Amino acid sequence: MKLLHLADLHIGKKVNGFSMIEDQQEILRQVCNIIDEKKTDGVLIAGDVYDKAIPPAEGVALFDWFLTELSKRKQKIFIVSGNHDSSERISFASGIMKEEGVYISKPFHGELERIVVEDPESKVHIYLLPFIRPAHVKAYFPEAEIEDYTDAVDTVIKNTSLDPQAVNILMAHQFVVNRGQLPMQSDSESISVGSLDHVEASCFAPFDYVALGHLHHPQKVGRKSIRYAGSPLKYSFSEAGKGKKKSVPLLTIDENGVDCETISLDPIRDLRIIRGPIDHLLSEEVHQNEGLDDYMLVVLTDEDEPVDPLGKIRSVYPNTMKIEFDNKRSKQNQSEKTAKEVAKKSSYELFEEFYFAMNNVAMSEEEKSFVQKILEEVEEKA
Amino acid sequence: MKLLHLADLHIGKKVNGFSMIEDQQEILRQVCNIIDEKKTDGVLIAGDVYDKAIPPAEGVALFDWFLTELSKRKQKIFIVSGNHDSSERISFASGIMKEEGVYISKPFHGELERIVVEDPESKVHIYLLPFIRPAHVKAYFPEAEIEDYTDAVDTVIKNTSLDPQAVNILMAHQFVVNRGQLPMQSDSESISVGSLDHVEASCFAPFDYVALGHLHHPQKVGRKSIRYAGSPLKYSFSEAGKGKKKSVPLLTIDENGVDCETISLDPIRDLRIIRGPIDHLLSEEVHQNEGLDDYMLVVLTDEDEPVDPLGKIRSVYPNTMKIEFDNKRSKQNQSEKTAKEVAKKSSYELFEEFYFAMNNVAMSEEEKSFVQKILEEVEEKA
Repeated sequence: MKLLHLADLHIGKKVNGFSMIEDQQEILRQVCNIIDEKKTDGVLIAGDVYDKAIPPAEGVALFDWFLTELSKRKQKIFIVSGNHDSSERISFASGIMKEEGVYISKPFHGELERIVVEDPESKVHIYLLPFIRPAHVKAYFPEAEIEDYTDAVDTVIKNTSLDPQAVNILMAHQFVVNRGQLPMQSDSESISVGSLDHVEASCFAPFDYVALGHLHHPQKVGRKSIRYAGSPLKYSFSEAGKGKKKSVPLLTIDENGVDCETISLDPIRDLRIIRGPIDHLLSEEVHQNEGLDDYMLVVLTDEDEPVDPLGKIRSVYPNTMKIEFDNKRSKQNQSEKTAKEVAKKSSYELFEEFYFAMNNVAMSEEEKSFVQKILEEVEEKA
Repeated sequence: MKLLHLADLHIGKKVNGFSMIEDQQEILRQVCNIIDEKKTDGVLIAGDVYDKAIPPAEGVALFDWFLTELSKRKQKIFIVSGNHDSSERISFASGIMKEEGVYISKPFHGELERIVVEDPESKVHIYLLPFIRPAHVKAYFPEAEIEDYTDAVDTVIKNTSLDPQAVNILMAHQFVVNRGQLPMQSDSESISVGSLDHVEASCFAPFDYVALGHLHHPQKVGRKSIRYAGSPLKYSFSEAGKGKKKSVPLLTIDENGVDCETISLDPIRDLRIIRGPIDHLLSEEVHQNEGLDDYMLVVLTDEDEPVDPLGKIRSVYPNTMKIEFDNKRSKQNQSEKTAKEVAKKSSYELFEEFYFAMNNVAMSEEEKSFVQKILEEVEEKA
């Protein structure tokens, strides 16, 4: 049996004001080609199908098109909701769609949904865990000690009886760490509050493969079979660079268990950072007419700032998302920099700095955990 | 073959600030009971499934529940979008759902979708016409003379080839009139611009039955087989009164054609207007503890206005939506009345009055039609 693992489509997303819808359609078309070529049996989509709880109508139309294409290809489709999705909205008509082999997680209701898929070589059990917060789980396990996300996920898994004869696959959308070690993050994920939303990978020990969504960089967490598919497109400049290619994991399941290879994706427009003096960047000898349509962050190093730099840059690189200056003046301009850094910080980090500035001592461990919990509660209610 | 005709569910609607979700669930449960009792084969939902293009999550969950219940009962389900629905959003996954017998109109794309349903006694063709405006149709028939809604609907129907051997049913969501004669309207429908959005019933001549949605009062338009199902609940005080019962048409189709009977619905809470002095209305002898939970407009006729009248009234009638006074003072208070009347008028009527006030003559026919068209264009863009 072959399954393709996708996550973090963020359909309908705008990046720096640019709609990604055309890029998304193209990359999903590539996914369809991979399905044709590799003759897969199903597709796992591990959350953040949409970028917003209420996606734009064109986003709904695109995901409709994609599901229809998958369905034409006789793929079984498995979807869990991510933190960006509305678990109620995305599971609309799931009771009817499962008859057609489209399995969508319902809002968390105290237990994992299990779907059994069999072929002559393997019996696969796929478990759907929508994005959960501790409060979702506490509601169903009032006796359990649930202090954080690890406890929450652990409680759900411990209360699930797995069939050791089957190949057990879990789909989840959480921030998973391996013994506290941080995975690779990017700016396009939501900033997390301290480390309270981390889920320790050891929770997932009973599963043969864990298909994760949430982090946008494709990566394994600890063992090879706990894996983030990553977003199919680059959604922030922190992911820029030729080296940071996007890919999809392809699982092959047979009597030996789960084998995983990754297949790379090629966007119609890459997302890049270029830097240098404006005349240099605009010169044909330098850009050689390659990748001019890419989404660009252009860092200009000119000391004399040119007139209408964005207009000039866009005359060659039409999809320039923004330009910045890196020169003597910009280096002096610390306040601007600070503002940008602040925007990247989590509420917890900001509070931590504020506390230090006010009290001249750092918070105690008890205070830290207290503040983290409060911020967590605020975020849940937001 | 038996088909139940529903329309104007307006799921998620609030009436005077009161959520109708519980009443809607209950009335849809009654619809399920009718299906069980009458052993129907399918359900037609003629638009305005939701009250808003983006319904609240609990509305999505309720419609999901209803579809699932219908599906469990092996009903074929036919849905066209109304003017309150988003035709893109509501048709999500329609390509997959039709495999399960759930047929949802896609945004208008130049032709009617046809679904063929057969049983030993009859061959039925069901045509889905989502709510359309002239501009939607013009885009596909640039040569056709489309001046108004009648032309628009007529053009679509004239370009559809019907099988005279089949029983042909059309589902549509428009404001249909019979030779210009106005049907019964209620305040919960959108106010229309002049008469430009009217569709002449004669367009529908080729069909054996026309399942309409849009107007909330159940009624036939001209012949018995062009029919508004009406909303399953009363959504405005203009529909108050024991006489104005809600119902669903049940179609029986056999070799003799289409027969239609209506089955009445009983809401858990009626919507009523009561009037009198406050002490009278609060007296147990008068209300006899009946229908106290109904949604109420209470018109108080006391000359001395009591302290906290809403609080007192709600102590007996907890679901009082609003109270009004009808006494000497309120009669003097013309400006309030005028404001209310203005709110009920269409933009066209307001302009007509403004024109007269400014020019002291009424608009000519040419001017009228010019203004109607402009307002129509404005509304389409809104």
